[in-house]
Amino acid sequence: MNILISGGLGFIGSNLLELIIDNKIFNKIYILDNNSICIKKTYIPYEKYNNIILINHDISKLIDYDIDLDCIIHLAARGNVIESIKDPFNNLDINVKGTLNILEFARKNRISKFIFSSTGGALMGNAPLPVSESSIPMPISPYGASKLSCEAYINAYSSMFKIKSYILRFSNVFGPYCFHKKGVINKLFSSYLNDSIFTIYGDGTSTRDYIYVKDIASAILSCMLDERGSLNNIYHLSSNVETSLNELIKIFSKFSNKNVEIEYEPFRDGEVMRNFGDSNLAKKELGFEPNKDLESLIKNTFIWYKNYLRNE
Amino acid sequence: MNILISGGLGFIGSNLLELIIDNKIFNKIYILDNNSICIKKTYIPYEKYNNIILINHDISKLIDYDIDLDCIIHLAARGNVIESIKDPFNNLDINVKGTLNILEFARKNRISKFIFSSTGGALMGNAPLPVSESSIPMPISPYGASKLSCEAYINAYSSMFKIKSYILRFSNVFGPYCFHKKGVINKLFSSYLNDSIFTIYGDGTSTRDYIYVKDIASAILSCMLDERGSLNNIYHLSSNVETSLNELIKIFSKFSNKNVEIEYEPFRDGEVMRNFGDSNLAKKELGFEPNKDLESLIKNTFIWYKNYLRNE
Repeated sequence: MNILISGGLGFIGSNLLELIIDNKIFNKIYILDNNSICIKKTYIPYEKYNNIILINHDISKLIDYDIDLDCIIHLAARGNVIESIKDPFNNLDINVKGTLNILEFARKNRISKFIFSSTGGALMGNAPLPVSESSIPMPISPYGASKLSCEAYINAYSSMFKIKSYILRFSNVFGPYCFHKKGVINKLFSSYLNDSIFTIYGDGTSTRDYIYVKDIASAILSCMLDERGSLNNIYHLSSNVETSLNELIKIFSKFSNKNVEIEYEPFRDGEVMRNFGDSNLAKKELGFEPNKDLESLIKNTFIWYKNYLRNE
Repeated sequence: MNILISGGLGFIGSNLLELIIDNKIFNKIYILDNNSICIKKTYIPYEKYNNIILINHDISKLIDYDIDLDCIIHLAARGNVIESIKDPFNNLDINVKGTLNILEFARKNRISKFIFSSTGGALMGNAPLPVSESSIPMPISPYGASKLSCEAYINAYSSMFKIKSYILRFSNVFGPYCFHKKGVINKLFSSYLNDSIFTIYGDGTSTRDYIYVKDIASAILSCMLDERGSLNNIYHLSSNVETSLNELIKIFSKFSNKNVEIEYEPFRDGEVMRNFGDSNLAKKELGFEPNKDLESLIKNTFIWYKNYLRNE
């Protein structure tokens, strides 16, 4: 089995790579990545493995390689809501046109399986909770809109060219190999370690559904190996637990033994107020069983984060 | 009230323009149109009216005018499914990036109302019938994907910048000022008048929900004048009647008194097999009451079509 992972050097890509390295199922692993995450060295030393080939390419440009592939895992994207409001055109170009470029590549190379990283929260906006496959998407930011657009093109290509597709709607992913990310958990770590002020937008009652990146990597692997028949597959991958920002800070302070200093700013447009998901379909069809022990998972992530900082 | 109509010289735009011309409600009517429909002269002689101003501009490029507007009616788009499969990038550029350009223009000019022409059939793919506001979109062509993408960006801008939006999902629109269009009714007229062969893709049992363009223009006017409070409004505008291609040909032959010669080709990927809509929400909230007398409406359209040909 030959696979290609776009964004394979990024946060989720690195965790997936770690999971499948030396896995005898995979013959060649192509990584399509333009290294835009700006870390000094890649999280996974892919150069050490003979079966991993890096293709340095910007997905906003057409991809013109002729390689023999069984599956594409398309993770490369601009993921930040606030940046998407500042520059919606750049976000459209990389996320939507980039996905269409990869779909065209998949069509031309007759690739039979396409796995895509979508989002549960930003896609659904303030839809009734929990969000699931039966919720009607209603994005409230350009980032959310870009992900719904990608899903729409994937559905079209899947249907027209019989490409088996897996649209995976992640809730808020956290875990190792996240150093370059701008998520709230990283900001909390950074405030703690630098004694800097942690900014809460709103009053801290806004909620998220935190899911560990290793569970996401396992679910992607399940899709890679899935041999059932259906053409269009959509799954919400979430912990099904709603955690407020205030609760998150409390969990962190349990093991960090120091309170971070907090300032409050107005809640930001484009951000979802509350979110949690229902991943029962993924449980039923993919055997998805997320780890819900948020405290120990955040602790693991914090240990990784401090180690990474030390060795950087 | 000052308004701007993108695609105001096109099929639906011309019918809307005809409806609102000399309507004292409207102070200035800006038409944003690059005249890409390639007809010798415009359907509506807009030059005769002092309050109509043409802005010749391609929506795939940023719009940089500073005008005082109350409402944008965004109709400009590439509307053909088959062409969107041949060149999905051009379709993305004009439909999605074009819509984002107009939304940015709306944001910068603090425009409070945005009305958009979407689609009921292409957006929904082969969703359970009838399609309505509670159906989950699942496009099966790049054109359908582009319209869902536009809707996603409109929802985001509506929510972030408090722009009151009306997403109108049309079923298959027909009627006067359609000469440049490639729809099935035009092809039927053309085959009849030129004694040329009419091609059916499939066996003629595929269905559509035909809606008269004058009813669409009236519904757009209702939205322009609507003063209720909700920010995001989505309506399916359809006749709620399912008509097969074979039935359509039968209706046409009732008054045309000549059978057109038919050839059968394989059904085309990207096209929806069956479609009809449920416009009860639009009936309830906009007073939408479509004319369902398909025979006399097609007859009217045919009379217009022949007249247009004669005077061209």
